[in-house]
Amino acid sequence: VPKNHDRLTERDAIQLLERAFRGQRSSEVEKAIGDDAAVLRGGLVWTIDACVEGVHFDRKWLSIEQIGNRAIEAALSDLGAMGAEPIGALVALTLPKRCTRREIEALAKGQARAAKRTRCPIIGGNITAGPVLSLTTTAFGRASRPLRRDGAHAGDELWLVGKVGWARAGLELLKKRKKKPAALIKAWREPRALIDEGKALVDRATACVDVSDGLAGDAWHLADESDLCIVIESERLAHDNGPVSLEQALAGGEDYALLATGPARRRPSCARRIGRVERGGGVLLEIAGKCRALSRAGFDHLG
Amino acid sequence: VPKNHDRLTERDAIQLLERAFRGQRSSEVEKAIGDDAAVLRGGLVWTIDACVEGVHFDRKWLSIEQIGNRAIEAALSDLGAMGAEPIGALVALTLPKRCTRREIEALAKGQARAAKRTRCPIIGGNITAGPVLSLTTTAFGRASRPLRRDGAHAGDELWLVGKVGWARAGLELLKKRKKKPAALIKAWREPRALIDEGKALVDRATACVDVSDGLAGDAWHLADESDLCIVIESERLAHDNGPVSLEQALAGGEDYALLATGPARRRPSCARRIGRVERGGGVLLEIAGKCRALSRAGFDHLG
Repeated sequence: VPKNHDRLTERDAIQLLERAFRGQRSSEVEKAIGDDAAVLRGGLVWTIDACVEGVHFDRKWLSIEQIGNRAIEAALSDLGAMGAEPIGALVALTLPKRCTRREIEALAKGQARAAKRTRCPIIGGNITAGPVLSLTTTAFGRASRPLRRDGAHAGDELWLVGKVGWARAGLELLKKRKKKPAALIKAWREPRALIDEGKALVDRATACVDVSDGLAGDAWHLADESDLCIVIESERLAHDNGPVSLEQALAGGEDYALLATGPARRRPSCARRIGRVERGGGVLLEIAGKCRALSRAGFDHLG
Repeated sequence: VPKNHDRLTERDAIQLLERAFRGQRSSEVEKAIGDDAAVLRGGLVWTIDACVEGVHFDRKWLSIEQIGNRAIEAALSDLGAMGAEPIGALVALTLPKRCTRREIEALAKGQARAAKRTRCPIIGGNITAGPVLSLTTTAFGRASRPLRRDGAHAGDELWLVGKVGWARAGLELLKKRKKKPAALIKAWREPRALIDEGKALVDRATACVDVSDGLAGDAWHLADESDLCIVIESERLAHDNGPVSLEQALAGGEDYALLATGPARRRPSCARRIGRVERGGGVLLEIAGKCRALSRAGFDHLG
């Protein structure tokens, strides 16, 4: 009989699944579990992402159309992080019995809007009943040389494309029933997968990840996979990141910015430098020349 | 404000989504919505399938290991129906907070067992919290010439690979807390995607579908997509289908048998003839030389 103290974190669960599935390999698969997307032969990249009512969104804060739009953009962000051009998507919808025609039309309208914006046609899917609204999107794309998490070099710069912490700040405003700054609320409600920016990073960045868990957490992914130390320089980070706190910038997820590493001479115009890569491991935050360790959650060791 | 009479069926919802997503096309996509899987250039086929607790399964009737196993086999059945060799799968798990390590290990063990049996490595995925256990599997494969639903010809035979109605009969036994015949219960608990049989149908069958909704419903899919009439001959169907009623054979889903059409001279040894294809439309059931119309549900017009 299972016991309560037997519960595990998401990270534990991923490691458990990784072990369970490790035994099987295929010559068509170049990179399995451990990146934003799986990489198949021929530069094909493939991802899956779920948005569940009550976990990832609440209908109080988003229109049904925005729920559909957001689910596609969030999934496509993984293709952006791999530097891939989208090929197509499949969507598995779980619809509560009370769902109406009007709601499903709005959902599809939002999905179609994101599919058009990202040039990723929705070419199939699956519908089933379920207790809450849930949208699972799988997307497929191609990159000449997919950007992975494990390619960073000591001496690389740390690059950020897009803003971080805005979506979290926006969600906090919505929870307080505030309406301004509208740009922050929009960042949470209407995120955009950085497809073109991801493609601009190919052959320039040495590693890349999308910022879905939060800057600190996703920097940890780069550090872990590349087996190096990522140093986030707080002054550089704050310089052009707008009206959010350092805590929000480090811990807030769902912005779908891109975090990459690469040599200074190859930094594309869409990216700005916010730190550096050094030998070692883990993630450091540098404030006024002093470094402190940063947890995966982005705040544990902050003053 | 949405109204109750605004509710729609699964079929309505699929048509609604089809319209919403129709506008977008890609040169890489050969066949979108309307088949067991989408077909991409190069004979690549791609499907997604969801299994939701309380909708597709109940923990009273399946072990956690069987839930994992069944979810992968059900998704892979779509690749079988396309005649494809599996390349890989991604799995999106929604786990209730009360899920234990032991349960997730059992789930993964079942998934890994099916992945091994079908030669389809699980190469990535996604984990999220949610109100009920849900497993969404996306699978990718390749066929030299994917089997579609729209290729049947008048004059073709109707072929069945595998048994139909067994899973439904087994589920009915479980609901009555009966344990025999064990083979029927096993058919529901441990379905097998017919991967090798699907491959044997390539270049022989003119059209193919997997029997997930029920023989009648899936025959309707062939009739609709091929714009022809499918005649199921009840004596042939019953002859070698074991201890299930005609109603169970026609209406029962989740067997993951394959229903195909093709010329008599090309019928492979794994398939048996259960009917024929004629000009016209819809699905007929022939009993003692007389035909009657068969509904999608498989029983509406049955005497």
